[in-house]
Amino acid sequence: MEKLYIIKIGGNIIDDEEKLSFFLQDFAKLKEKKILVHGGGKLATQMADKMNIPQQMIQGRRITDSETLRIVTMVYAGYINKNIVAQLQSFNCNALGLTGADGNAIQGHKRTHSTIDYGFVGDIEFVNIDLLQQFLMQNISIVFAPIIHDKAGLLLNTNADTIAQEIGKALSNSFETSIIYTFEKKGVLMDANNEDSVIEIIDINTYNILKEKEVIFEGMIPKLENAFTALTGGVKKVIIGKAEKLSELISGTAGTQIIND
Amino acid sequence: MEKLYIIKIGGNIIDDEEKLSFFLQDFAKLKEKKILVHGGGKLATQMADKMNIPQQMIQGRRITDSETLRIVTMVYAGYINKNIVAQLQSFNCNALGLTGADGNAIQGHKRTHSTIDYGFVGDIEFVNIDLLQQFLMQNISIVFAPIIHDKAGLLLNTNADTIAQEIGKALSNSFETSIIYTFEKKGVLMDANNEDSVIEIIDINTYNILKEKEVIFEGMIPKLENAFTALTGGVKKVIIGKAEKLSELISGTAGTQIIND
Repeated sequence: MEKLYIIKIGGNIIDDEEKLSFFLQDFAKLKEKKILVHGGGKLATQMADKMNIPQQMIQGRRITDSETLRIVTMVYAGYINKNIVAQLQSFNCNALGLTGADGNAIQGHKRTHSTIDYGFVGDIEFVNIDLLQQFLMQNISIVFAPIIHDKAGLLLNTNADTIAQEIGKALSNSFETSIIYTFEKKGVLMDANNEDSVIEIIDINTYNILKEKEVIFEGMIPKLENAFTALTGGVKKVIIGKAEKLSELISGTAGTQIIND
Repeated sequence: MEKLYIIKIGGNIIDDEEKLSFFLQDFAKLKEKKILVHGGGKLATQMADKMNIPQQMIQGRRITDSETLRIVTMVYAGYINKNIVAQLQSFNCNALGLTGADGNAIQGHKRTHSTIDYGFVGDIEFVNIDLLQQFLMQNISIVFAPIIHDKAGLLLNTNADTIAQEIGKALSNSFETSIIYTFEKKGVLMDANNEDSVIEIIDINTYNILKEKEVIFEGMIPKLENAFTALTGGVKKVIIGKAEKLSELISGTAGTQIIND
């Protein structure tokens, strides 16, 4: 099977113009099929502040009300997505930006919860495999903004890590799929205060031990749970590390590899 | 040859939620291949006001400075484009939104002028016929935001009427192409104050006479020049009228038809 890389970048790269440009040059150089999934960044919050739209928080989670959804749609699907696409085109990577609504690429429903109303947040039901395959076979690199739709006219804010995972699972029958989750650290660390304590490989047994010993904690837990879900769903390899080291992450000389056995 | 309709809508429809929804239902019902090109609307100006970004005007023309480009990218390519796509999907029209940067759909260059700096405004050089044909053959209806790119990383604001014209010319060898320019009036009027004085058909001779007699003046002149350029470039038919009457415009029972002989 042909190789496919699904690479997720977050705010730490998106908010830094120079870092983003270097990352996109590295991404453009990848010869294999590739999909980029981007999150948001500070711009959406800055916009909301400038427009005096208060950010609602319930139990520590940001709520996507209708005004926030409007800003998120503008910033993620408009500004960030189209600037990434235009830059990739300048590096001779034939990129094309999508939300889940475009070509019905990713369909889902508004999240329901017995006590919390998360607002316009979507859970994924369906990935349009045919559409994504057609793009990839034409050597088009898809750039996903973290917005899906419900096929009833609603756009919905969705976590970019989850989008990468769901796309990865959906395409794993057609491609030898790797997911690369990039973030601000070099990988999963044995010691959170020591950037050089990257754990090279984590399987499910190691994960359970590290979680029990609280070496892995807080934000790292959902990231790794996400990785194991992807692997169980057919994804071949998940790699976690710094976006600045993209080629090393792919060659296995940097970052943490999450494996299934 | 198969028929293709390229339909342009402007601010008078985009700014009216109910009218937009009715229009999109009519658009979704069209059985033929179809492309929608949308302009902006009041939202971009409202956003600029809210964020205290002054609108620069030179000789009566709005200048797209870098802050304005940012807003235009957010509002046109993000908010308006994705809401139109999501609505069309809900009406079972498989829509997919593009700027010129996506898949290198429309490439151009920053406008140069000996005395006026228009800022980030683009003139079209190239339409990616293969890409658009592939979408149309998959029964995907493209929704274009009025933004192109220069293949060197710059996004550029571009007139939606011109985008419709250039796409029309580019696709006229592959499809029997009609362009429908919608605006706030029923068509080209003999008497600007009488909405029922629609001129049914205008050819180039009639146009020259009507222009000389100043029946056609001001904003109508560039619209009609645009129409004749499209016809000379191979477009079969150009129709001008109200978006609310889409099916009548297409069947020839409303609006003004511009023809080449």
